[in-house]
Amino acid sequence: MRASSDSRPRVGILMGSQGDLPKMGKAAEVLQTFGVPYEILVLSAHRLPDRVAEYAAQAEGRGLRVLIAGAGMANHLAGAIAAHSLLPVIGVPLSSSALNGVDALYSTVQMPSGVPVATVAIDGATNAAYLAVEILALADDQLKKRLKELRAAERAKLEAGSKKPG
Amino acid sequence: MRASSDSRPRVGILMGSQGDLPKMGKAAEVLQTFGVPYEILVLSAHRLPDRVAEYAAQAEGRGLRVLIAGAGMANHLAGAIAAHSLLPVIGVPLSSSALNGVDALYSTVQMPSGVPVATVAIDGATNAAYLAVEILALADDQLKKRLKELRAAERAKLEAGSKKPG
Amino acid sequence: MRASSDSRPRVGILMGSQGDLPKMGKAAEVLQTFGVPYEILVLSAHRLPDRVAEYAAQAEGRGLRVLIAGAGMANHLAGAIAAHSLLPVIGVPLSSSALNGVDALYSTVQMPSGVPVATVAIDGATNAAYLAVEILALADDQLKKRLKELRAAERAKLEAGSKKPG
Amino acid sequence: MRASSDSRPRVGILMGSQGDLPKMGKAAEVLQTFGVPYEILVLSAHRLPDRVAEYAAQAEGRGLRVLIAGAGMANHLAGAIAAHSLLPVIGVPLSSSALNGVDALYSTVQMPSGVPVATVAIDGATNAAYLAVEILALADDQLKKRLKELRAAERAKLEAGSKKPG
Amino acid sequence: MRASSDSRPRVGILMGSQGDLPKMGKAAEVLQTFGVPYEILVLSAHRLPDRVAEYAAQAEGRGLRVLIAGAGMANHLAGAIAAHSLLPVIGVPLSSSALNGVDALYSTVQMPSGVPVATVAIDGATNAAYLAVEILALADDQLKKRLKELRAAERAKLEAGSKKPG
Amino acid sequence: MRASSDSRPRVGILMGSQGDLPKMGKAAEVLQTFGVPYEILVLSAHRLPDRVAEYAAQAEGRGLRVLIAGAGMANHLAGAIAAHSLLPVIGVPLSSSALNGVDALYSTVQMPSGVPVATVAIDGATNAAYLAVEILALADDQLKKRLKELRAAERAKLEAGSKKPG
Amino acid sequence: MRASSDSRPRVGILMGSQGDLPKMGKAAEVLQTFGVPYEILVLSAHRLPDRVAEYAAQAEGRGLRVLIAGAGMANHLAGAIAAHSLLPVIGVPLSSSALNGVDALYSTVQMPSGVPVATVAIDGATNAAYLAVEILALADDQLKKRLKELRAAERAKLEAGSKKPG
Amino acid sequence: MRASSDSRPRVGILMGSQGDLPKMGKAAEVLQTFGVPYEILVLSAHRLPDRVAEYAAQAEGRGLRVLIAGAGMANHLAGAIAAHSLLPVIGVPLSSSALNGVDALYSTVQMPSGVPVATVAIDGATNAAYLAVEILALADDQLKKRLKELRAAERAKLEAGSKKPG
Repeated sequence: MRASSDSRPRVGILMGSQGDLPKMGKAAEVLQTFGVPYEILVLSAHRLPDRVAEYAAQAEGRGLRVLIAGAGMANHLAGAIAAHSLLPVIGVPLSSSALNGVDALYSTVQMPSGVPVATVAIDGATNAAYLAVEILALADDQLKKRLKELRAAERAKLEAGSKKPG
Repeated sequence: MRASSDSRPRVGILMGSQGDLPKMGKAAEVLQTFGVPYEILVLSAHRLPDRVAEYAAQAEGRGLRVLIAGAGMANHLAGAIAAHSLLPVIGVPLSSSALNGVDALYSTVQMPSGVPVATVAIDGATNAAYLAVEILALADDQLKKRLKELRAAERAKLEAGSKKPG
Repeated sequence: MRASSDSRPRVGILMGSQGDLPKMGKAAEVLQTFGVPYEILVLSAHRLPDRVAEYAAQAEGRGLRVLIAGAGMANHLAGAIAAHSLLPVIGVPLSSSALNGVDALYSTVQMPSGVPVATVAIDGATNAAYLAVEILALADDQLKKRLKELRAAERAKLEAGSKKPG
Repeated sequence: MRASSDSRPRVGILMGSQGDLPKMGKAAEVLQTFGVPYEILVLSAHRLPDRVAEYAAQAEGRGLRVLIAGAGMANHLAGAIAAHSLLPVIGVPLSSSALNGVDALYSTVQMPSGVPVATVAIDGATNAAYLAVEILALADDQLKKRLKELRAAERAKLEAGSKKPG
Repeated sequence: MRASSDSRPRVGILMGSQGDLPKMGKAAEVLQTFGVPYEILVLSAHRLPDRVAEYAAQAEGRGLRVLIAGAGMANHLAGAIAAHSLLPVIGVPLSSSALNGVDALYSTVQMPSGVPVATVAIDGATNAAYLAVEILALADDQLKKRLKELRAAERAKLEAGSKKPG
Repeated sequence: MRASSDSRPRVGILMGSQGDLPKMGKAAEVLQTFGVPYEILVLSAHRLPDRVAEYAAQAEGRGLRVLIAGAGMANHLAGAIAAHSLLPVIGVPLSSSALNGVDALYSTVQMPSGVPVATVAIDGATNAAYLAVEILALADDQLKKRLKELRAAERAKLEAGSKKPG
Repeated sequence: MRASSDSRPRVGILMGSQGDLPKMGKAAEVLQTFGVPYEILVLSAHRLPDRVAEYAAQAEGRGLRVLIAGAGMANHLAGAIAAHSLLPVIGVPLSSSALNGVDALYSTVQMPSGVPVATVAIDGATNAAYLAVEILALADDQLKKRLKELRAAERAKLEAGSKKPG
Repeated sequence: MRASSDSRPRVGILMGSQGDLPKMGKAAEVLQTFGVPYEILVLSAHRLPDRVAEYAAQAEGRGLRVLIAGAGMANHLAGAIAAHSLLPVIGVPLSSSALNGVDALYSTVQMPSGVPVATVAIDGATNAAYLAVEILALADDQLKKRLKELRAAERAKLEAGSKKPG
């Protein structure tokens, strides 16, 4: 279904500061596994607000389909992206403060009506990427096939690994 | 892009008990506004687990594209759906217990790797529907157009309503 | 010290939605008591982000000295204002959700380095205005005088009202 | 009272992932102390849902009397087991996330009416096993005797160890 | 299996104060549905500690098999019962304080090793009774049969009530 | 005022397990500083309930005036002591669990009417001893004198240590 | 032991604002029951700090033996009293804010070393008075006798009221 | 605008104990960057209350314009300063206890009406200083210029550092 000749990034992974890279990089790894082109950037909602607004506003035109945003503390990044784009935005609350990520969770998930952020677990960048793949797979049969193969493979491995009762 | 002749439901709205209808019905209202066909069911992950598994496993084949699941307390519904389907699953934590929905929020959002649930705010059924529309609009240009028109209209209304400084 | 001929608003009171007016209006009452010119607007960080950015960026030039921003849930309004202005920004977390304002408190106060928000109590719009007056009074001797008189008057009243031990 | 010739496992210890073994293994140690036959498996409610359903549905027929399920984050394992079996299910919330187990506690204990999970402390696998033994001992006089002896022995040791006031 | 001629109470329902009766009475209703003989008492761990100790110590000898204890605030009742008996003890945290039952939940569930309390949801007296029935049914085939019939009946009713997708 | 010839312990320091000694030992150090005779014991409310009841019931007759009880998790020790004695009981919540002492704090402080526990900070054994000394000093002029001297000395030291503004 | 001719107040009940009277008045009722002379005042740590300091510093000289302080939100009243007096200070956190008293509880109980506040339950003014009576009774045999009588009477009433098992 | 010949400290940085210096020293670093004269002192609201009152009362007369107060646990320092001064007071909750700073946050931010404390993030001393600079810059054009230059420089650096999408 999808035009395979388009190699532009389809997922944008954003994070609030350079220090979030070890956690947010896991999203990139998942997307690589699935062969989904992506881009990854450090962008702070509070320190570079105009750049965030510009990025979000142009994302759809640049061919992006899903945006993933991770940040700690008062995580406004995902919400700021969602305010400037109608693409699905996935928020990853990060546990980088004394509050262990509860602050980031509440700041990410408690969005007002009309501006949703699809929130995953604290430090859940892996699942953010899986969710992005599920969304992209709705219009990409090959991706859907790979998603099913991967889940089947994982289940087979887990089945084998679970100790059988005698 | 989308075959307009297909009138099957594209979004499934599930809730844990009949009492959740006033809150979850708001998702249906939003989908109606956008003209997105949907179905709405009461299904409990704990009281009808096989039915939930069956529903989730058959959803994609029945033409559904996005599943929304709302429940209170230990909200396992969204997670159970996500365990049996590779469609994007949106979880709505409901504030129906003494804990005001913190229990449902944690039960919905803190999913393990590989099985994401896109979580929205406590009692945030409206945003669950908006998120579903954003996802569907990725492959439905008319829906994208309506989404943009609605956001523009809302902003115009808000602009007009905000008291101007003299 | 202050040029008394300048009747432009010196404090901007912003709130995320029309429904916040009963709570945020208390800030206006305090400013009226002190004779401080102010303006009051409904502006949502998520629904009118460009308007918020524009307002914040122009605030200093329009003669504003202190900005007060109140919102509930994931309160990004104060942070968004602070990202676009170097005026002191006072954030008021509002208790308008199932989480009773803890979400708004964390979203308001847990700001990253370099972009402070002066946060007051949940629903503490009155204190937001007092804080604004204290800030303005640093360069306005008459205001300082009124502030001292008011505190003295309140203490005298409280002194009188406290039942004396025999 | 109990047919001693039956050496089939009477308690099933389940855990959400291999990494939970150090914590959940403590339940096995307690059961060994009491000579209660058990089996221990890794089974994820989200990654192997059909296997969990099958295990729970067959447990009673296989001679199991009590099921213990431990998992972290959004712990749905105990609830999923309870949804497919009428054996007593004991849930152990594990502290394997940024939220230190509060997420797992709420996900385990806040079950809807009709599907109970007997929840013990965060990381309380030892007590899960004691509770299982108490339940089994209701119909096993020898086990009851051993339980009483053990508690008496522990109390004697504690009595001896508590420094006496002069 | 069970001697049907024994009509002594098999479940003891205890609560910390008379005011807890509306909540704890739901446990009695469930036991009545199943025809399980029970007794219900008001006993405070803090106001009648010796009576609680005596009750717990004598419970097994009086024919009781499971004890259910509900209390609010610092709920020590379940723990105190568990300290004086080796019968399974089920704790019901009640939401009777400013903390909405979180205090009672923590006080009930966070028991030290060797003295388990099977904790159910905040205000979850209904599930406490279901759990008691599941435990009793391990050695009472008729009760097991009734439990299965009831769950089947409930599921049939829920199946019928869930709106079918077209 | 106090008969100096009485060398019996006046304060009893109790703790739930041997592992609490490093934290609870600080209370002993403070009492030594003030020359207040004390005794220190390991007594678990759940593992040695009769011993706890006996200790509390005999405490007043043995000359004790204040009881300090520290425990972690579901801290019932202080409450159990208070249920069996009319001496002032001071509770020290300990941070020995995944919940960092919030469980112990709530279990200690949220006592029902008529059975108070004077609760100090999490891990606040030092202050428990200070509070005991303040209570004893009400009827012991020498102790009061020492208390005043110590506070004065500490303030002098702090005054000296605080860097003076130029 | 106590000079009965001294009719000066022995307990001071303080509260942060006039609105706290319905809750804090319960402490006065308990003291009246025991015939303990008391005084009750409205004093705010933040609005009348010098008055609070003066009151605390003079309390001992005026014959007061125990001070009870109740306040909501950031409850500094008990701590401020404790900073200016070496009498035992009992703190009552009040649930007068959006945070339901958790803010007041933490502000009251988490005192630094050397300045203890004996904290009771949220809104626990009744227990504050009981604790004061227990402290006073250490040096007042008649009060101790009344305390024992009252507890015995309450227990007898509770014993009678607890439904007996058949 | 500001008389450059006045070299007296304009910001006072206070902290509850010597151990807070590593965290609170960051405020001093920021002020040095901006060339704002400051003083830094250790002052405990509970251990040196009169000194705190005296400091706060004299601060304005000594030329101070903004006061920053940081403390952990029950942080009463900022509130006590605010009670004795009409200068803007900035509170920094410190994460020095088992509660990770939630206690300090609530104790700092939940101030009663009329006595505001401008609260920043847990351990947010850097932002406390930025906020102080923003306040001072209202009446100091050179400082405003430096503030703008610094923010511009930081944004330029962040812009350069953010990986560009291809």
